[in-house]
Amino acid sequence: MPQKTSAKPLLDVLAGQRQAVPPIWMMRQAGRYLPEYLEVRAKAGGFLDLCFTPELAAEVTLQPIRRFGFDAAIIFSDILVIPYALGRSVRFEAGEGPRLDPLDTPEKIGTLAAQADFTKLEPVYEALRRVRNSLAPNLALIGFCGAPWTVATYMVAGQGTPDQAPARIMAYSHPKAFAKIIDALVDNSIEYLLGQLEAGADALQIFDTWAGVLTPREFLRWSVEPTARIVAGVRARAPAAKIIGFPRGAGALLPAYVGGTAVNAVSIDWTAEPQSIRERVQNKVAIQGNLDPLVLIAGGAALDSAIDDVLANYAKGRLIFNLGHGILPETPIAHVEQMIARVRAYKG
Amino acid sequence: MPQKTSAKPLLDVLAGQRQAVPPIWMMRQAGRYLPEYLEVRAKAGGFLDLCFTPELAAEVTLQPIRRFGFDAAIIFSDILVIPYALGRSVRFEAGEGPRLDPLDTPEKIGTLAAQADFTKLEPVYEALRRVRNSLAPNLALIGFCGAPWTVATYMVAGQGTPDQAPARIMAYSHPKAFAKIIDALVDNSIEYLLGQLEAGADALQIFDTWAGVLTPREFLRWSVEPTARIVAGVRARAPAAKIIGFPRGAGALLPAYVGGTAVNAVSIDWTAEPQSIRERVQNKVAIQGNLDPLVLIAGGAALDSAIDDVLANYAKGRLIFNLGHGILPETPIAHVEQMIARVRAYKG
Repeated sequence: MPQKTSAKPLLDVLAGQRQAVPPIWMMRQAGRYLPEYLEVRAKAGGFLDLCFTPELAAEVTLQPIRRFGFDAAIIFSDILVIPYALGRSVRFEAGEGPRLDPLDTPEKIGTLAAQADFTKLEPVYEALRRVRNSLAPNLALIGFCGAPWTVATYMVAGQGTPDQAPARIMAYSHPKAFAKIIDALVDNSIEYLLGQLEAGADALQIFDTWAGVLTPREFLRWSVEPTARIVAGVRARAPAAKIIGFPRGAGALLPAYVGGTAVNAVSIDWTAEPQSIRERVQNKVAIQGNLDPLVLIAGGAALDSAIDDVLANYAKGRLIFNLGHGILPETPIAHVEQMIARVRAYKG
Repeated sequence: MPQKTSAKPLLDVLAGQRQAVPPIWMMRQAGRYLPEYLEVRAKAGGFLDLCFTPELAAEVTLQPIRRFGFDAAIIFSDILVIPYALGRSVRFEAGEGPRLDPLDTPEKIGTLAAQADFTKLEPVYEALRRVRNSLAPNLALIGFCGAPWTVATYMVAGQGTPDQAPARIMAYSHPKAFAKIIDALVDNSIEYLLGQLEAGADALQIFDTWAGVLTPREFLRWSVEPTARIVAGVRARAPAAKIIGFPRGAGALLPAYVGGTAVNAVSIDWTAEPQSIRERVQNKVAIQGNLDPLVLIAGGAALDSAIDDVLANYAKGRLIFNLGHGILPETPIAHVEQMIARVRAYKG
């Protein structure tokens, strides 16, 4: 029987329709492994300048589509644009990652604005409109935000941290103050995601990069529950919105995340245990993932074998092929091409 | 019905006998949060000098027993003593963690010795004998080693790394060379653990701190299989040996670890999902863990609640109460006392 002809294979997977060949894109596909990205990056000034210059953000968003023919573009932006729109100082220093003025006491948290200045995010919407106008109609455009927990880890610590200790201790010691950060992020992320849909996004992803460091109780409170409120808030005004959650490292807590948030898909990292994912997650939602970004650096037979594992584990069900985390700057472009060719040759 | 009177509650748990009040100790309980440790550390010279001076190593091993009355002592040592005995340069630089000469090419790995110089480890055995002679008969003495995978991550990179990328890429790109490191660590860890039993250890723990970064296929190959060989090798000559495995971050792969290694207990971190642990892990072996070390820093009501969660989740079965990872230097001693009192007041 012929497959249904699809306008956008990625959206069809999110809507419940498995594709014979899984659609494919890569987290951080517009990034430093691409020479054409580095060229634009060099003339953009700072990292946030690149995010907030619609012409340049649209250009780097489209670069990997032109080069590789992925099934989806993801708008080039950053999860810290929401703190920025909330009036926090956000700086990206070369080689050091983001720096913010830390909200490291309940008193400082008390000064946090409840309402973002969305005019600051207008350039992201404009970049989305530009990408939408250039993108082939069969390709999906993905908007995104950071999950409140993950964004809060940067806001409390003022920077990335190896173990997210400052936010975790704040959440334990001052849960009411910490909840004020989470609440501000929930409310403004809803608006931001709706704005991205309005500007042309077909689907949305919520990145909870640091979800995996929490106890089950804290995971439900700070990852699942705020994400559920975002999903419900978006769907209250955009009932058909398709949302991918990425609670990285959630492991055996993934079924609780899926049940609790009502996302349409979960992005899983490379450590996921396939049988439990198939039986308790993929039976309910689509799976996105989960190639190890380091095997994409290694290449060769190891890469082929790892791609085959992902396909064998998940492609009998609804799968969007992706990495388990963002592509790394040192990744050879030839390995990306090897990956795409092998996935597209899949006979499912 | 009265509980069986026990010589060593921790060993009874490992042998299959749940205790009404779970025995308790803490990973890294001899450590920098203790002023008496810092005093000894200051006069020891370097960190390895402390490990290899039996009088001082025995003293710091016993300090937390005297202060807190834990149910077990763990010999003060380091997982990198095996690379050291294999002739690798191992240095601990203040505030920077360990530094080794990296085995970052297959050619360098080719030069690795197969056989450790066990005379270098004699001070560890002597420290064990001294602790054994001073330790009350109802307290257990735990010996340990690093799991081959985790030790190899340091040997390949030459230092700790945020994502263990050098070892992971080496394992993908040069699996035969990488296996040579693993094989040397398996063989010599068996000898080392048997030596520790001989010197007075009652039980053994295998620390696989970085087990959680591997794909399922690599986890089986580099964590489970080498650990299984160590367990079998030790039991071939010490059939009653009691062994605790700690594949940190293994998550939904814990049942595969338990089934594959034949350990007597698994130490679990604070992110574990309780229902699957009870149904698929604790039904087969004892559980050790799993309080978040950061909630021990936070203290107060959050600490009480987190202790109660551990007890509610696991104390109906075989449990050794512990942290989910090592205690951190900034932990207040009063919080450790609060934890012990609350665990010992448990009415199971």
